[in-house]
Parts: sequence; structure tokens; C-alpha cells
Amino acid sequence: MSTTVANIDTKQSKIPKTCKAGCVVNAGPDFKIAVEDVPVPEPGPNEILLRLNATGVCYSDLHYMLEDLPMPRMSDFQCRSPGHEGAGVVVAVGSNVTNWKIGDRGGVKPMWDICMNCELCWDGKHETYCAGAVACGLMVAGTYQQYITSPARYTTRIPDNVDDFTAGPIMCSGSTIYSSIIASELKPGDWAVFPGGGGGVGHMGVQLAKAMGMRVIAIDGGAEKRALCEKLGAEEFIDYTTVESVEAEVLRITSGIGAHGIFVTTGSPAAYKIAPMMVRTGGRVMCVGLRSATVGADPAWFILKNLHVIGTMVGSMKDTDKALDFAARGLLKPTYEKFSINHLPEAVQKLRDGKVAGRCVVDFNA
Amino acid sequence: MSTTVANIDTKQSKIPKTCKAGCVVNAGPDFKIAVEDVPVPEPGPNEILLRLNATGVCYSDLHYMLEDLPMPRMSDFQCRSPGHEGAGVVVAVGSNVTNWKIGDRGGVKPMWDICMNCELCWDGKHETYCAGAVACGLMVAGTYQQYITSPARYTTRIPDNVDDFTAGPIMCSGSTIYSSIIASELKPGDWAVFPGGGGGVGHMGVQLAKAMGMRVIAIDGGAEKRALCEKLGAEEFIDYTTVESVEAEVLRITSGIGAHGIFVTTGSPAAYKIAPMMVRTGGRVMCVGLRSATVGADPAWFILKNLHVIGTMVGSMKDTDKALDFAARGLLKPTYEKFSINHLPEAVQKLRDGKVAGRCVVDFNA
Amino acid sequence: MSTTVANIDTKQSKIPKTCKAGCVVNAGPDFKIAVEDVPVPEPGPNEILLRLNATGVCYSDLHYMLEDLPMPRMSDFQCRSPGHEGAGVVVAVGSNVTNWKIGDRGGVKPMWDICMNCELCWDGKHETYCAGAVACGLMVAGTYQQYITSPARYTTRIPDNVDDFTAGPIMCSGSTIYSSIIASELKPGDWAVFPGGGGGVGHMGVQLAKAMGMRVIAIDGGAEKRALCEKLGAEEFIDYTTVESVEAEVLRITSGIGAHGIFVTTGSPAAYKIAPMMVRTGGRVMCVGLRSATVGADPAWFILKNLHVIGTMVGSMKDTDKALDFAARGLLKPTYEKFSINHLPEAVQKLRDGKVAGRCVVDFNA
Amino acid sequence: MSTTVANIDTKQSKIPKTCKAGCVVNAGPDFKIAVEDVPVPEPGPNEILLRLNATGVCYSDLHYMLEDLPMPRMSDFQCRSPGHEGAGVVVAVGSNVTNWKIGDRGGVKPMWDICMNCELCWDGKHETYCAGAVACGLMVAGTYQQYITSPARYTTRIPDNVDDFTAGPIMCSGSTIYSSIIASELKPGDWAVFPGGGGGVGHMGVQLAKAMGMRVIAIDGGAEKRALCEKLGAEEFIDYTTVESVEAEVLRITSGIGAHGIFVTTGSPAAYKIAPMMVRTGGRVMCVGLRSATVGADPAWFILKNLHVIGTMVGSMKDTDKALDFAARGLLKPTYEKFSINHLPEAVQKLRDGKVAGRCVVDFNA
Repeated sequence: MSTTVANIDTKQSKIPKTCKAGCVVNAGPDFKIAVEDVPVPEPGPNEILLRLNATGVCYSDLHYMLEDLPMPRMSDFQCRSPGHEGAGVVVAVGSNVTNWKIGDRGGVKPMWDICMNCELCWDGKHETYCAGAVACGLMVAGTYQQYITSPARYTTRIPDNVDDFTAGPIMCSGSTIYSSIIASELKPGDWAVFPGGGGGVGHMGVQLAKAMGMRVIAIDGGAEKRALCEKLGAEEFIDYTTVESVEAEVLRITSGIGAHGIFVTTGSPAAYKIAPMMVRTGGRVMCVGLRSATVGADPAWFILKNLHVIGTMVGSMKDTDKALDFAARGLLKPTYEKFSINHLPEAVQKLRDGKVAGRCVVDFNA
Repeated sequence: MSTTVANIDTKQSKIPKTCKAGCVVNAGPDFKIAVEDVPVPEPGPNEILLRLNATGVCYSDLHYMLEDLPMPRMSDFQCRSPGHEGAGVVVAVGSNVTNWKIGDRGGVKPMWDICMNCELCWDGKHETYCAGAVACGLMVAGTYQQYITSPARYTTRIPDNVDDFTAGPIMCSGSTIYSSIIASELKPGDWAVFPGGGGGVGHMGVQLAKAMGMRVIAIDGGAEKRALCEKLGAEEFIDYTTVESVEAEVLRITSGIGAHGIFVTTGSPAAYKIAPMMVRTGGRVMCVGLRSATVGADPAWFILKNLHVIGTMVGSMKDTDKALDFAARGLLKPTYEKFSINHLPEAVQKLRDGKVAGRCVVDFNA
Repeated sequence: MSTTVANIDTKQSKIPKTCKAGCVVNAGPDFKIAVEDVPVPEPGPNEILLRLNATGVCYSDLHYMLEDLPMPRMSDFQCRSPGHEGAGVVVAVGSNVTNWKIGDRGGVKPMWDICMNCELCWDGKHETYCAGAVACGLMVAGTYQQYITSPARYTTRIPDNVDDFTAGPIMCSGSTIYSSIIASELKPGDWAVFPGGGGGVGHMGVQLAKAMGMRVIAIDGGAEKRALCEKLGAEEFIDYTTVESVEAEVLRITSGIGAHGIFVTTGSPAAYKIAPMMVRTGGRVMCVGLRSATVGADPAWFILKNLHVIGTMVGSMKDTDKALDFAARGLLKPTYEKFSINHLPEAVQKLRDGKVAGRCVVDFNA
Repeated sequence: MSTTVANIDTKQSKIPKTCKAGCVVNAGPDFKIAVEDVPVPEPGPNEILLRLNATGVCYSDLHYMLEDLPMPRMSDFQCRSPGHEGAGVVVAVGSNVTNWKIGDRGGVKPMWDICMNCELCWDGKHETYCAGAVACGLMVAGTYQQYITSPARYTTRIPDNVDDFTAGPIMCSGSTIYSSIIASELKPGDWAVFPGGGGGVGHMGVQLAKAMGMRVIAIDGGAEKRALCEKLGAEEFIDYTTVESVEAEVLRITSGIGAHGIFVTTGSPAAYKIAPMMVRTGGRVMCVGLRSATVGADPAWFILKNLHVIGTMVGSMKDTDKALDFAARGLLKPTYEKFSINHLPEAVQKLRDGKVAGRCVVDFNA
């Protein structure tokens, strides 16, 4: 989608010829990440060129590099850099671009672009499900590369008082859980349960639900997660490593009738299994976390409780914008661990080892 | 809930001392139905006494008599007559009753009463899920008994131009599918699929969806079912006994992207299994039919399609009222086979044998 | 609706024969309030008898006594005591009552009872608009009378940690503004404006909107109102006595595009006049405050902004319950001035003089 | 927005240098329409060039030419041709365009383009209210010109079985009333009233509401309008020229409680005035028709009825698409009178004289 036509603004004199990029080598179970110098791309007529300051490292990046899911591969698209949680600054604009100028701050999301011309793109809720969506870091170069092009129409503006290390993870995990909360139709005062509440997605859910007036029950393991969740606004914390029955605890807290919504932000099969037992009549089990599992039950279970099981993907432009607005007001602050771009391989390995608290974020300038 | 206090209106002179009732004998797998003479009950102060002209025969009645589900038994409540689809006329009113008068027409629903004092009763959507609901024909005498008491506050009025044989089945199966369609939030112009479209619940769903401006695909087996469904407004009929793949047919009809909603009115495990594959992004799988099955999928399936799986129970007072309104306008007409009360055992056996087309309805006056 | 039949529980031995009641004398522009001893009523079979500890004094009471609105008069119903914000304890239950017991705490609302048998009563949103609703303190004795009967099915339970002086005003003004906020469909993060934010209804709206995650702009006059609103969570306060243009201030605060919703809790014609100018596209002008005014505009104004003007009445059982839940969590706390029942006339006069900050609440035990 | 850069596809050999266009001369109260030969524009890189076969003539066109509204003037934008209901075929595509090809059929709407990058454009409901929207026939050349450019991202596809004379009026009036019906949230079985039901917008509303399962009451004057409305599906017709009281008629038809929604498609002040009196509790008065009028009432009126007054503008891409889908299924068919392009001035005059039944549509090929 990028072109090599010379339509670069004269103000772009400081754009280097090459930039650093985390590139996958030998994709598959034995993949490696190499930090290489790659050519800086030039924006097409409807694109902007961003110099990223930060990118989050997401578990989906691992899947793309491991090629362990039954889906298209990066190599099919000549894409070598994953990443879809980037935040930076506009350094060049394409010839037709009028809504961005050099120096504006912009963020890149899991969907690099959408078609904007189908019912899913039009309905205000489903644009990221668009059949023509271009997955960032899979079908085009992702945010592991410092200089990246982005469609002028689908790049997210970052508010002044949100720094790039905060904005990055909101592009994906923040907007994902925001979208799920909205789709759940939970109301202020309702009980919202977050299995995996101390994790990358969950800890943002805890904050957002709290900011929306909900009563939050976080479920996770260990004292560190408890401390984090309670600090972020969880009214109750259930440590699954110490209680006998997580569902009994949820029922106890909710006067015996269960919560209004369960946001399964972990992919844990156990979490999916017990979720339907933890909601009250009319309650929602929201599927967020991906891993091989099963969610469901006998229809009788659905019918007798008016159970809703609903899945949602990454959020839309609007969702991302709204999540950033909560961040700008100080109500959403991802917890992250910073890595220099040169230490990207360590960050990826740490994520693969399941040792990351919150989110790994890469600092391109360190 | 009925009392023996003598608070009967003087106009009730024609009320007999006894009436006919279909009573279960030897509940369990070898149960029998006996048509007996039983005492006519007297209404409590807040109740009315109805003389039923018709009652539908529902598969739930069978479960109650078979005692094959893990739930309370009729005998626990000294209840001998099942039935919860009754339509008749008021013949006596309790001392506190002001909203009914003798001669009014009334219908009895699966929930004989609800508490009217809990959040589920208040929210306009969940009253039939009330923990204090009293199941008719299980916890109190049901509509297999010709004279039956009913709470003045929870009896349904039957419109003038809806006969009792039409009204009966609407009390349960009509309101059930109406409720499911409303809960699905489908819109006029959307594709609604009815697995079991030729059955007792399904054939009412086909009519209601059509009357609501939806495009209906009915799925069932055989030429008779096809003829029925097409007559009732199905735009497409899929005969599962002849096509290679039901889901492929649904996809073909819906431009390759699936329907907006699947209303599984059959309890068939196969129907539940394929339902998630037949909906488009954001689509609804509505659980209506009960039998041991599983509905669900890998969370990825939910997430990538914004899949909603939702169960709903029998409809509320409002739902029943609305369904009757469609009937009054000629847009909902259950297909039924009439049996005299003395032939009730044959009707029950026919249902048990799976040989009923539409609904069996008992005529108490034949 | 109360009867004189002796169906009083034996535990009621301590119920006096008479009790104090604020009674209107010479209804009309020159009305007076006399505190008299009146007979304690006996509950009908479906009623409970409450001994009130507190009642709020509402401007509607004034209208009823002034007989200044084109509506039925108290005298038409042989009603002498207004009042509809009562909180107390159950001291007797009618013969059919099973859901209340002596010692339970209960609250009385503006609608003393509803029919529970019409579409408005069934839909979960409109019960207080029921054509058969019985207005408390107008059509039956109101909460200015210490002992009052109340329908067992329509009395509100008061949570343990909400005192009666808090519960009283929530029965009417609290549930009213809760209902309006819910009807507005505003979302967490949205801008909610409260003209009259320092008043009896408004100051509860400020708290509820804040607790629901909205951003609150309160409009009122004077330093005391400012201090109150800011303490209760208003992010911005506009003093209409000092700014040049209230609407300009609202636009300035909301980035030039207006707020999401305006809750006009004052009856001020000026407030209604400018409200449509203060909302953004798709915004809501919610009518709450009553006084002779006009709200509306040229259709062009509605069409070009997708303007919604919506009125709502006092809240339902569910609304009241939810508002009490916010109170139980410490998030809704009416500001009130307490008067002994013997000083009720002074409270009424103070309200008539427009000198009340928050709510006047009568203490029946002082 | 069009450029003169030569990026025309070679297949465009048959595009003429000039084309016919209805151009305003001497805009203002004494304006004239001249049919002139004007240069065929060239599409910009993100635009397509359409050869229109049909354009509707809308009252807004008159306002633009009369310059009688307090809004920007055509001359401010060097625009000489009004029109925003065009239907035709793609004859050239800009250099960046990938989603259209020559020969595709496309329609032009009242908004020629929107920004696609603001909250209003993102939320699926408000794109046509976008502050950056470009009004067709006001800010850029409109559909009175046979060859017109259109943004590739904001041109509407016309289904195969919808002819251009049908598609044209759906671009504006069809999508407008579709949008209003959706915004009203009326349900199948609800009573929908159309003041002006026999008019250009109203007669499409009657058809759409009918197709959505609503019960339609049309209000208009004269036997011809009655015949049209009844043919299109109105269950009741009220001839305002013969009945004593229109509102009394609506109340009579709706069991004395009023309709669920009133869609004021005429700009008549009288229609707006009585609309609030014709709805039931919770009802909607939908503002569609523009003319100087007032809609509104005392807040008491809003509060006691839970009245909603809501305005909506022209529909979105999605709304237009959905309305076309009803047309493709034969459920929406505008009534129109065809004029050759050379007789455009007569069509405009006829509209100005208020003598048009349905819609005037211009045939560019006649």
C-alpha cells in the first residue's frame, strides 16, 4: 500500500533513509527476532509516515511469528515486522492528505486500514470485523519498525496529555476491553468480573469498569496481582490460587445471584468453563481472551438464566478514541515494562515465557 | 394458594361441584393419564376462577409427568394435573378482585404467578425468571383441569377476535418465540432462520418474524413441513432430509455471509451445533428448544464474528399480550389438532411419539 | 383503599389509636397546615401499615394544597394530608401479606400504588405513568401523616445502611432524577449539565451522574450552591448570576460542541429556553423541573442537530431501588434540613418562600 | 475537490467534453433555471466520474436557488447546479480508486462527502451531521449536471433490480424517512402516523413502515392522496380537509391512547402543533419536514407523557443502502413524474407551485 513515488513534503528533510526494525527470522516454532536496519518507507498519496516512539508487544505478535494459528502468514505478505500498538509523530504526509500535518501525534492499531465501504464499516460497531481490513504487522509492516506508513483516514490521534508509552497499549488491549465493556451493556452499579484482572488486558478493564461506575471483582493469582487490582479500583479480589471455588466466591460477593458480566480476559479454559456459572439472570459472559478453549453449555443453561455469551474483537476508531479519553482524564493508565528497541528480543521472550506483568512496551529512542 | 373460604359471588350458581381433569397416575417413565372428576376449586381473595374451554398440550407436560428432568416433581406440590396453555372464561372472582368480572375471557400461562416484587419482575424483561414464580401444572393445578384458579394480577386477557384454541398455544409457545425474537433485536429486513420451523414453536416463529418484516428461512424435514412453512410466510425452506449441508444452504441464500439470527426451536443437538456457523458477524444464535445438547464454541469463534448466543424462556405478560395482538390482527394463527378432553391420553401419547404436527389442543366441551 | 376490618396482627399491640398528621386547612391560595391528631388507619388485606420516621416536603405538596394546577384536588378524594416521600417501619400487615413482616423498613413513593396490569406497568419503564396509578398525598392519605397504609406489592424496601432521612427524599426526587439520567442514555465520560444543580433534585443528579462516570457541569447561583455542587462532584460550576452567557460557558467547557445531555431540574423558563442550544449533535434535553414554561424550537433546530427533547416523571420501583443502592454505597446523600413534625408549617412556608437549600425533611419523632 | 490532472482511464474514450446541466441564473427570489452545456469534470485521484441518468428535484434545491434560508449560498462555492438525488453509471475512476470500476452503477446523496474522521462519522448514526460534510449541489456541483464527480468512498451502490428513477429519490427522501423511522425505535405492531403521508417523503414512509410491520395512519388531503396512501399500505387515512379534528381521529383509531410515533413529513406548522397530542405515553414526535414552525410544549406535557421530540436529517450510507434493499425487494417504490432535462425548469416551477404529486425526476436521456 505504500508507494515509492516521491511525494514527500520538503519539511521532511530529517527523515533518515533507514530505521531500526524488529524483524522475524525463520518464522515458526524456532523463530528469532533480529533488530535490523530497514529502509524507511514513503507514504502513498493517502498515507502519512509516522516515526514511532513506542510500540507495545502483544501476544498476537507471537502467534504471527510462531505461525501457530490456522491463518495467513506474514511471509505471504512479504511482511517481516509484526506489531500493532504503535505511537509516534507524523513526519511526512502523502499528496492527498489534508487532515494530518507534520508534528501531529498518531497511533497505529491492530487494523492498519479498513474498507470504509461495507455494512460492517458503516454501523459504528463492527468496522474491525471488515472483510477488507488490513491487519497491521501481518499484512503490512507493523509497529516493530520505527518508521511506518499509515492511512490518513485510519490513524488515531493521541491527546496531548497521554504519553506514547501509555497510548501504545491502548491502541490494542485498551480499546479491546473498552469495546467489550460497551458491548456488554453493563450499567453503573453493576458487578463486573475480570478473570485475568491483573493481566495486560484485564488490568485496563478493571480501571475502565471502575471509571464507568461499575463494581469490580478481579480474579487473578498472587499478592502482586492483588495489590495491582486493588490499587486500580477492584472492590473485591479473588485469588484463584488460594480459594477453594472461584465461582462460590463470586456468588458470595454478589448476594448469591451472580454478577452482571464476566469479562474473560484470560484465555484459560477453566475461566471460560466457570464463567456461565458466575452470572445472574440476564448476565453476560464476554469472550475476550484467545486460546484454545470452549465456552458454552447446554441450551437449558442459556434458557433458564437468559444467559448471553458474546465475543468481541479489538475496538474501533471510536472505541480507541474513547479509551484514550479516559487515559487523558487520568482514569486509564496501563502498567508497563519498558525495553529499548535493541532489547526487543528479550521482551518477546519474556512474553513467551509468561513472565510479563502488564505490558512490555518498546522505547525506540533508548 | 387457593382457599376454601366461601367468598364466591352469587352469580356463580352454575359452577359445578366437580369437573373433569387429566390427572397423572404413577408419575415416572410408566405414567398414565386418567381423566377424572375432581373438585372445582374456589378462588382465594386475589384470585379468579376460570372455566377453561381449551388447553394446549406441551412437551414440558410430558417432562413433568415423566419426572425425567433434575427438577422438583409435581407430587412434591400435591399437583396431579399438568398443563399451562389454558384459555377460558371467568366464572367467579375473589373478594378483593376488582379488575376482572364474570364473563371476561382469560388465559393461563406457564408461570401461574410471579412475585412482582423483585428486580426480575420489575425490569420488563425477566419476570418469568423470578425466583418466586409458581410454575403452572407443576406447583399448582394446571390447565388439564377444566376449572382452575388464577391470580387476578397475572391472568392474561384474550382479545375478542381470538378464539380459545388459538389463544391456548399462544400462552406458552407463542409467547416463547415472540420473546426470543424481541430479545434477538433483529430488524425488519434481516434474515431470520428457524430450525424446526414446521414445529409447534417454530411455525409460530415463522409467522411472527414475517409479520415483523423479516426475511424467513425455515428449516425442517418433508413436504408437509415445507408446505406449511411456505404458506406461513417463509421466503426459503431448507429440507434437512434432502440437502447435503444445511449451513451451506443458509450461506448461499444470505449472499455468503450468513443470517442475522438463528432461532433454534428444535432441541436437536445437530441444530445447535451448526447454528453458530450460519450467522454473520454480530449475529445471534437464540436458544429456545430444550433437549440435552451443547451450544457453544471456541472463544475465537465468538470473538472473530462478534457472535452472540442467547437463551430466553417463556414470555412475559407483555410478550403474551403482544403475541395475542398479532393473532387478533390475523398475523399469527397456530396450527393445531383438536382432541376431546376424554381423548387427552391419546393426545399425550401422540406428542410422546413425536407425531404431532403443530400443537395438540384439548377441547373441554367436546 | 384501607379497610376497617380487624385483620391486625396481635404483635401490633403498641400501635396507638391516633397519630400526628400535617393536614391542609382551607386548601387554595390561602391554605394553612395544621398538625392534628388523626386516627391510625388499619391496613387492608393486601396492605401494610407503616410508622413513618421521616417524610420529605416536596414542591408538589404545595401544588396540591394550593390547588393551583388544572388537576384533581385532594378534597375530591377526602384526602387531607399530602406527602409522598416517607420512610419508616412496618408495624402491621394485612391478612394476605406474605412478603413483609413487622419490623421491616419501608418507603412510600409519589405513586402509592399502580395497577400492575397494563402495558405501562409491564414494560419496566412506565409504571408511574399508569392510568390507574394512585397518587400518594392526593388520592390517599400522604406521608405528612405518621401512620400510613401502603400496598404490600408497591412499598419500597430501605437498605440497612440508609437512614430514613436519606431514604425519604430518594423516594421522590432521587428516583426522579435517576430515572431521567437512565432515560437520557448518557454514557460514562459524557458531559451532563444540571441547571439547578444545587437544588433539591439537581444536587442528587450531580451525585448520581458523577457516580455513573459522567462529567458534570452544574449551573446555579451563588457561592453556597457552588460549594455544594463542587463538593458533590461537579467538575465545573457555572454561576448564572455572574457569567454573561450560560450557554457560552457550556460550549467553552465542551470544546465548542456542547454537552451530551442537559437535565433541566429547575422549572425556570430561561433554563428551558437555552437548553437546546447547549447540547451537541444527538444530544438530549431532559425535562424534569415543572413550572409554566415552554421547551421546544423550530423543527430545523431539531433536525440539524438530531436534538432529542424528552420528559420523564418520577421513577419506578426499580429506579428507586437502584437509587437507594447508590445511597447504600455512599454515593448518593441528599442534603436536607430537618424539621420536627410540629414545625411542619414552617418547613412548608420556607419551601413556598424558595428559601430551602436541598430538601426539608420532617422528623416525626422530634 | 475535482482536479484537472489527466488521470482518466483509457476506457473513457466516449466521455464528451461537455454535458447538459441545469444552472441557476440570478439566484434569489427571481432566480431562473437555464439548461446549459458545461464542461465535464475530471475525477480527482480518489473520485469517480458518474454519468447520471436521473436526478430527483427536491425542495431543498429551491431553497438553495431562492437563497431564502440563513445559510451559505451556492455562489459562495462557485456552484451553479443544485441537485442531490442522482443515479447513474461510473464512466471514469481516479488513479487511487480500487473499489469502483467503469460500468458500476452509483448514486449521489445530499452529502457529497463526509470527513470520516470524527466521532459523528464513526458512530454509525450521525455521519451526515459531520461538520466537514460537503453538501451536494451547494458546495460542489450537484446532480442537475449530467456528469458529476463523486468520492469513491462515499458513493452509493445501486442494486441491479432498482432502476435509476427509483434510486434517485431514495438517495434523499427515501433515506431521510428510513433514518427517521429507525431513530424512532418503533416496533412492528406499533402505530405510525404520517402527516403528509401522500407527499414526496411521506409516501415513502408509509411504504417503509408497512414493510417493517407497523400499522400506518396516513394524514393528507384529498381523494387522490387517500387512494395513494391506501394503495401503499396505510391501514387508516385521515383526510384533514374533511375531518373536524385530526387528533381526535388518531385517538379514536388508537383506542384513545394515541399512536407510538408521529412522523411529521410535512413542514406544516399545524402538523407540528398537534403532533404531541397524538402520541401515547412514551411516544415519539419525529421532526422530518422543514419549514418555519415550532415544535414543543410546556415541560409538563413532556413529563406527564414521557414525550420524546426528536429530529433527524438525511440518512447515512447504511440507511440509504437499507432503503435501497427494501426497494430491491419491491417494498419501496417512489411515485414520480418524469421530466426531460430540457424541461427541468418546468419541474422546478411545478414544485415551487406545490403541484407535484410524489417526486419530480429528471431524465437526462430524454
